[in-house]
Amino acid sequence: MRLSNLGTEQLREKDRSFVFHPSTHLAKHSRGETPNRMMAGAEGVYIWDTDGRKSLDGFGGLYCVNLGYGCTEIAEAIARQAHELPFAHIYASQGTEPVALLAEAVVEYFGQNMQRVFFGLSGSDANETNVKLVWYYNNILGRPEKKKIISRNRGYHGSGLVTGSLTGLPFFHDFFDLPLNLVRHTTTPHHYRQAHEGESEEAFSKRCASELEALILAEGPETVAAFIGEPVLGTGGIVPPPKGYWTAIQGVLDKYDILLIADEVVCGFGRTGEKFGSHLYGMRPDFVTIAKGLSSAYLPISGSIIGDRVWSVLEQGTEKHGPLGHGWTYSGHTLCAAAALANIKLLKERNILEHVRDVGPYWHTRMKAELGGHPIVGEVRGVGILSAVELMRDPKRRVPFEAGLQVGVRATAALFENGVIGRAMPHGDIIGFAPPLIITRKEIDLIVGATAKSVDTVYRALQAEGTI
Amino acid sequence: MRLSNLGTEQLREKDRSFVFHPSTHLAKHSRGETPNRMMAGAEGVYIWDTDGRKSLDGFGGLYCVNLGYGCTEIAEAIARQAHELPFAHIYASQGTEPVALLAEAVVEYFGQNMQRVFFGLSGSDANETNVKLVWYYNNILGRPEKKKIISRNRGYHGSGLVTGSLTGLPFFHDFFDLPLNLVRHTTTPHHYRQAHEGESEEAFSKRCASELEALILAEGPETVAAFIGEPVLGTGGIVPPPKGYWTAIQGVLDKYDILLIADEVVCGFGRTGEKFGSHLYGMRPDFVTIAKGLSSAYLPISGSIIGDRVWSVLEQGTEKHGPLGHGWTYSGHTLCAAAALANIKLLKERNILEHVRDVGPYWHTRMKAELGGHPIVGEVRGVGILSAVELMRDPKRRVPFEAGLQVGVRATAALFENGVIGRAMPHGDIIGFAPPLIITRKEIDLIVGATAKSVDTVYRALQAEGTI
Repeated sequence: MRLSNLGTEQLREKDRSFVFHPSTHLAKHSRGETPNRMMAGAEGVYIWDTDGRKSLDGFGGLYCVNLGYGCTEIAEAIARQAHELPFAHIYASQGTEPVALLAEAVVEYFGQNMQRVFFGLSGSDANETNVKLVWYYNNILGRPEKKKIISRNRGYHGSGLVTGSLTGLPFFHDFFDLPLNLVRHTTTPHHYRQAHEGESEEAFSKRCASELEALILAEGPETVAAFIGEPVLGTGGIVPPPKGYWTAIQGVLDKYDILLIADEVVCGFGRTGEKFGSHLYGMRPDFVTIAKGLSSAYLPISGSIIGDRVWSVLEQGTEKHGPLGHGWTYSGHTLCAAAALANIKLLKERNILEHVRDVGPYWHTRMKAELGGHPIVGEVRGVGILSAVELMRDPKRRVPFEAGLQVGVRATAALFENGVIGRAMPHGDIIGFAPPLIITRKEIDLIVGATAKSVDTVYRALQAEGTI
Repeated sequence: MRLSNLGTEQLREKDRSFVFHPSTHLAKHSRGETPNRMMAGAEGVYIWDTDGRKSLDGFGGLYCVNLGYGCTEIAEAIARQAHELPFAHIYASQGTEPVALLAEAVVEYFGQNMQRVFFGLSGSDANETNVKLVWYYNNILGRPEKKKIISRNRGYHGSGLVTGSLTGLPFFHDFFDLPLNLVRHTTTPHHYRQAHEGESEEAFSKRCASELEALILAEGPETVAAFIGEPVLGTGGIVPPPKGYWTAIQGVLDKYDILLIADEVVCGFGRTGEKFGSHLYGMRPDFVTIAKGLSSAYLPISGSIIGDRVWSVLEQGTEKHGPLGHGWTYSGHTLCAAAALANIKLLKERNILEHVRDVGPYWHTRMKAELGGHPIVGEVRGVGILSAVELMRDPKRRVPFEAGLQVGVRATAALFENGVIGRAMPHGDIIGFAPPLIITRKEIDLIVGATAKSVDTVYRALQAEGTI
C-alpha cells in the first residue's frame, strides 16, 4: 500500500526537488541525470521499486538488513510498542522495560568483560560517544595528554567531523577539512594490496603491528589514548584481516596502555559467522560499537558496549564530579529498543550463526571458482556473509585501473542489469556484497553467476574500447 | 502489555546492571541510590510507570512528544510502513515515497527560501551536518579560513564533540576537553540575568549585537563562518529573546557575510505558536535544524533544512568535485519518515498552532499571577508552550542560590510529589516546562497549581533549615 497516488515520475520530481541525498552528486540529481530508483517493497533478500522492478539485494540495504525484509515478528513488536508507549527518555536514571531487557541481551551476547550499553542512533554517534568517553577516562585517570586516537587508512567509522576523521578514506575527508588533528592513521591491513613481494600474511601482520608501534613511539605513547578498528575492513573494501593481525595489534596496544575500540557496526550480530568479529579474531576490546545488525535496520539504534576497566573509571568519575553530561534525546528510544530486542530473539531462534557458518564458506568457494582466474580480477575475498571482488588492470602486478574509468561503478551497473544489487565501494574498483544473513545457497548461486557475467561484460567492453 | 513478567524491582536490577543512562550519576545508579522509575505507558499528557504511578508530563519527554502520547494515527502509520518496507537507504540518489513526501512537507512548512532537507536521527547529528556543510560551502567559495562558528553561552546544540562544543553549558564541557577550538561563544541573551541596571530589553539586544560584532572583529570576520542559535534558549534555561534581539543579530551577520543556523529542535513545529521560532522572531536562517517536534518523538528523526544560497554552492561543489561524501545509514529511514509525515499531517489537521496561540498566553498569565511575586522567584517567563520559573535567593538583586543547595532539583522533586513532571534545567535553579502542545487549560491549571505549591514547599524548607 502506497502513501499517495503519485506515479514514479511524480515521486521522482518531488525527490529531486526536496531531498538532499547522502553521498550523491547533488547537481546531477537535481537535473534528473542520476538513476533515481524509488523503492517500494521488499521480502526476504529481494527489494523492488515503484515500477515493480525486483532486485536481489546483495548489499542488504547498507549491510544492515541482516534478517532480511518482511520479518513480521519485528514489525509486530514495533507496532505493539508504538501503541503501548512510543517514547520515554532514559535520562537521569529513568528507564523502560525494552531498554533494560535489550541492554541485558546485548551485554550477554557479547560476553567477555562487558558491563554496560550506552544506546544511540547510528554507528557514527556511537563512535562519537566512544571518543568522548576515552577522553573522559584519561581525564579521570589524571592523564590529560593521553588523547589521540589511532585508526587505519581505509577504516570506516562514521561521517561526522570527529568520526569522519577516524574514517581513513579521502572521499569522506576532501573539502571538509578532515581529518581533524586528534586522529592518526596507520597501515591498511590488506595483504593483497599492501604486502611486499613474497611477504606472508603472518609477516605482513607483524609489519602492520611494528608500523603501529613506530607511530605510537613517534607521537609519544603518553599522548595515544585508543586504537579503533573494524574486525573486517568494511566500507574501505571488505577486507578480512591477514592471519595473526589482531593478535599482533593487541600486543602493541597492551604494551602502551592503549584502549581498543572494536567497531562492530558491520561485523556484529553474526555477519562473520561468530556473534562478533572480535570473537572470531580474538580481539579484547574496551569499547564495542554496534548498530546495523542490532536491529536489522528495522529502526535506527546503535550502542557502545563498555568493558570493565573503562566502566569502573566512569563510575569513579561520577563519584568525584557528579552526573556525566552526555546523551541524545533518543538514546534508548523505546520503540527502537523493542525492535532490536525482537531482532536479537529471532537471530537466536533461527540459528542464524549456524546458517552463516554453513553458507558463507560455500559462497567464498563458489566465488573464487567462478571469478578467481579472470583476467581483470585481482582478488576474491570474504568471510561469513561478506564478499568482495577487486578488479585490477594487472592482477599479478597489482596495477589498478585509473579512477576515472569507473570500472567498479560500471561493474555494479552491469550487475544491476543482471538482477543483483552490489555496491561499488568508494575506494578502488571493488564490488562489495553483504546481503541479508538468511541468504540461501540458491540465491548465492544467483549472485555468483550474475557477478561473473557482469565482470565479463565490463571486461569485454574495456577491450572493445581499447582500454585494455 | 508488558514484554516480560518481571516486577518493577527485577526490572530495576537489570536496568542498573546493564544500562548506561545519559546525564546520570553512574556510580549511584549502579548502587540503586538514584530514583529509578521504569516507565510503562502513556496517554495524552500523562505518563505512568510499572507501579501504576501516573504523572502529568510537564516536559513532554524531553520537549519532544509534541502531539502527546497515544496518537493512534502515528502508531498506525508506523505499523503499516513496518509491514510494507521497513528500510531502504537513500544514498546515491535512491529514494522512497515517505522520504520524498516528508521532504516536500518540511520545506513547504518552513517556507521562505528553503530548498532541500538532509535527514538524520538527532538534533546533534543535524548540527554536525550543518557544521560540515558550512565548511564545505566556504571551501567551495575559496575561503578556506572562514570556518569558525559562533554560538552563545547557555546555547544547547547537542552533545557530540563538535556539537557539544557549540553548546555553551559547562555541564556538557567539563572533563570532556570541550569546547574544541573551532567554536567561540558570545553573550547569553537573557535580559533578567545579563542586563545592566535599568537597561531596557531593546538596549540590551543592541548590546548583545555589538558584543557579537566586537567578537567577530577580534577573531577577524574572514575567519567567522556561521552563527548558531536557538530562537528561544532551551536547555540553557528556556529564555525567550529580549525584544529586537534577532533583528539586531541578523544585521551583524549580514554585515560580515556570516551564515545563520537556526536551531529549531525545540521551537520547530509549533511550540512557540508559530510554525517555527524563526518566523516568530523574523530570523532569516541559511540552515534550520529540526528534530523533536518533527516526529513528536514517536521515532528518531532529525533534519537540516538548507536555504538557497547554501544549496546553490553545494550543487556547484558536486559539479566540480563529484558526490558529496556525507551521510548516515539511517538518513531518511523509511519508517521514521512515515512517522514524521503522519505527525505533520496531524499537526495541521488538529490546528495545533491555533491551540498553542490560545492556551500559551493563558498559561503565562496564570503562571505570572501565581508565582510572580513569590520571595524566591526571580523570573517567570515563557512563550507558546514553553515556560520557566527561575528561583533566586534574592530576586531583586539577582543573587542566585549556591549550586550545592540544589534548589532547582528540590523544587522539581516536590513537583513530582504533586503529580507533575517538570525539569530542573542543568544551569541555575530553573524549573522548566515543555509539555505536549495539546495541553488544555485545565491541565495548565494543574501545572500552575502544583508549581506554586512546590515552590512554596521548598521555600518553607529553606527557611526551616536556616538557609534563607
